[in-house]
Amino acid sequence: MPDSFHMTPDDFRRHGHEVVEWVASYMERVGTLPIVPAVAPGDVRAALPDAAPEEPEPFAALLRDLDDVVLPGITHWQSPGWFAYFPANASGPSILAELAAAGLGAQGMLWATSPALTEVESQVLDWLVALLGLPASWTTADGPGGGVIQMSASDSTHVVHVVAREQAIARGAATDALVAYGSAQAHSSVERGARVAGFRHVRLVDVDDAFALRPGALRAAIEEDRANGLVPAIVTSAIGTTGTGAVDPVAEIVPIAREHGTWHHVDAAWAGAAMVCEEHRVHQAGVEHVDSYTFNPHKWLFTNFDCNVLWVADRAPLIATLSILPPYLRNAASESGAVIDYRDWHVPLGRRFRALKLWWVLRHYGASGLRHHVREHVALARELGRRIDAHPALERIAPVSFALVCLRHVDGDAATDALADAINATGTLHVTPSAVGDRRFVRISVGQTHTTGADVERLWAVVDAAAARG
Amino acid sequence: MPDSFHMTPDDFRRHGHEVVEWVASYMERVGTLPIVPAVAPGDVRAALPDAAPEEPEPFAALLRDLDDVVLPGITHWQSPGWFAYFPANASGPSILAELAAAGLGAQGMLWATSPALTEVESQVLDWLVALLGLPASWTTADGPGGGVIQMSASDSTHVVHVVAREQAIARGAATDALVAYGSAQAHSSVERGARVAGFRHVRLVDVDDAFALRPGALRAAIEEDRANGLVPAIVTSAIGTTGTGAVDPVAEIVPIAREHGTWHHVDAAWAGAAMVCEEHRVHQAGVEHVDSYTFNPHKWLFTNFDCNVLWVADRAPLIATLSILPPYLRNAASESGAVIDYRDWHVPLGRRFRALKLWWVLRHYGASGLRHHVREHVALARELGRRIDAHPALERIAPVSFALVCLRHVDGDAATDALADAINATGTLHVTPSAVGDRRFVRISVGQTHTTGADVERLWAVVDAAAARG
Repeated sequence: MPDSFHMTPDDFRRHGHEVVEWVASYMERVGTLPIVPAVAPGDVRAALPDAAPEEPEPFAALLRDLDDVVLPGITHWQSPGWFAYFPANASGPSILAELAAAGLGAQGMLWATSPALTEVESQVLDWLVALLGLPASWTTADGPGGGVIQMSASDSTHVVHVVAREQAIARGAATDALVAYGSAQAHSSVERGARVAGFRHVRLVDVDDAFALRPGALRAAIEEDRANGLVPAIVTSAIGTTGTGAVDPVAEIVPIAREHGTWHHVDAAWAGAAMVCEEHRVHQAGVEHVDSYTFNPHKWLFTNFDCNVLWVADRAPLIATLSILPPYLRNAASESGAVIDYRDWHVPLGRRFRALKLWWVLRHYGASGLRHHVREHVALARELGRRIDAHPALERIAPVSFALVCLRHVDGDAATDALADAINATGTLHVTPSAVGDRRFVRISVGQTHTTGADVERLWAVVDAAAARG
Repeated sequence: MPDSFHMTPDDFRRHGHEVVEWVASYMERVGTLPIVPAVAPGDVRAALPDAAPEEPEPFAALLRDLDDVVLPGITHWQSPGWFAYFPANASGPSILAELAAAGLGAQGMLWATSPALTEVESQVLDWLVALLGLPASWTTADGPGGGVIQMSASDSTHVVHVVAREQAIARGAATDALVAYGSAQAHSSVERGARVAGFRHVRLVDVDDAFALRPGALRAAIEEDRANGLVPAIVTSAIGTTGTGAVDPVAEIVPIAREHGTWHHVDAAWAGAAMVCEEHRVHQAGVEHVDSYTFNPHKWLFTNFDCNVLWVADRAPLIATLSILPPYLRNAASESGAVIDYRDWHVPLGRRFRALKLWWVLRHYGASGLRHHVREHVALARELGRRIDAHPALERIAPVSFALVCLRHVDGDAATDALADAINATGTLHVTPSAVGDRRFVRISVGQTHTTGADVERLWAVVDAAAARG
């Protein structure tokens, strides 16, 4: 038996160059690959042995299986023909920062366990506050608030429900009496976050014709719950719902939340990225009066998964809810109160250096580069919207929202599903068929890093042809 | 303004090679760097601009700041002189898999959103079931159970508390009556997971002289709570506590949990890795009767953070608790019931391809390579234990546990802290000073990937010299 099975730094160099080359080559060819793999459930597993190998395998075998086993089972989110769900748009600087962070292998649960992890994160999230036009009081440098990177918007939404629960309980409420609110079009993470946090009552409030929360319906729901002895604890407003990109009227929800003493959370998971462009900030009017705000750089800001940001207007209740300090984590820096220990800002304890990729993305693109590409995606979506409006067989079911277009065939659900099928049948274009109420529609989300006008033209050609057949 | 700010594949190649070289060079020199950086709170932030750059910066500037800004603020968890906390031991194949996964940029919330992500994960976690000597019924291939990768053991422990809560509530309990149990030496994630899940009552049960949970004390606590109208919902047993590596008697706790109808969770976050060696499995006797088990490949199995595994003996209640299916996530594969959708197994929705690094680590090392290195770390810890036992000025405060040694100076707390200070003053060795009850001790955790006998000799020389001065 050898003394060591570890990869030497020189082997790491060699294999590292091989993996870099593999990824670069993947970037070059991803647009030509069928976006949805032709595998049936169990196919990938069937290609793998039944047990871990007893003896080491050469690196070449690992790389070979990337092509032979993994790639045939990958849905290609990085294809420029990706118009499905919301994007998870990666970029070169982000991917390389993930490599550098993994190489450093530092763990930032406390400031003391790697100060640079914490301080780069705090600084970069403060930069983003300005970049998205959010309140300066949400920075850790200048305010009582602050931002933290979490894994997914679901985590952030869950954790604010926990904080809101604890605040209501501290005021004397029983857990089983608490109520959480969102719109009927809120992302499933709102209901899920509330239920995971132990809420027995979740109200999904009625929406208007543009699928935005109706403030009057919210007020009525809250008043009815209070009349029944329940305790409203948290309201979530969505800026850009996942279903149709609807924007809840945050400024009108603010006084309702305030009057009833609830936490007010904003879910801008996708659309938050658009706020780098001043012209979109009208959609977050009132945000200076909310308690928390989450958005995902890993959706539409060229930062590969995972990188979700949660800001709170006041970090004290978050930290009070999550802080428990065992003896082996005691240290002078934490006790001085002069540092941020991000372990107290989320459910996980350990954390890797995700701020590095956000930092590299912001510097590689610069604010002007981010604005350029977001504006390009929005312009493409609007052009698509104009064509749909001018087309006799097509109609939008909702306003074009940022870079999301939701359309249907005027002939109804079957013809609408046929549109989605025709697009997806190309192999190199992909959309999500969806439904609102009992009506089917096609969601077209523009935002993959390398999507250009040519890709939207390809998409339109298919839609136009399929619509004529409809 | 340029048409595109994106990094081209060719630039990715060039910069990718630069980052690979940077990481390889870091691996070569990390052992010579001071493990704890000489920065005061705010130093790193002060080196950063006040705002995001308006214009793009060249990649060379990003790389330069890795050296100039980041490295001076990094605590070097990858130094072979790292004996602090528990390790977060990375390895070449793991780091390169992180790169490949970031390059693929696929998102595995559903089987349908990238089948390979889900199936590689299911298969590799099934491999690990056999590799750690866990029950075959915990595999998704053969049993009602199954494993899932989460971010941190805190997440897994939290989520099982949520499931246990829901099971107790389904049997008629009120949330505010639920009780969670662990030992007084349980990791803070047990109390924290319970409190985040909404438990108002958490009992940290008395431990024996080896800091293991006393089953009699657990039984008494449960009976007292039941007599007071409370509802015991979950017990966590630790295999290898963070404080001192104590092993709770799982087999004796099993009948207590069963008698009182509670969920039984095992936290083997660190020591689970040791179970690749059959000789350690005596410490998990009884595990075939528990409901869930968590361990961190990112601690001591050469897989960089984050990579935590949660197994459940029965996946149905986990999925029932976490599953909410909105229309935009509906798909034929999910509806067929033939696939696993991991979004229903944890709080986050999105997920990256973390199974790739676990797969690459298992193949690069082979089971025999993993056993070799774990045994090497354990042997080094035991040798250290023998020297402490033979030293007149030193004593262990607990049995050597796997690869953790907890010692003190016989002269008391000041002399004990002086030992830790002497070790840490070297700059290239690092330990965690800690306390149990009101007694100070020094935690020496052997397990960094590249730690060898020579590093332990360096450590011992400092301890021996400092002990003489004590």
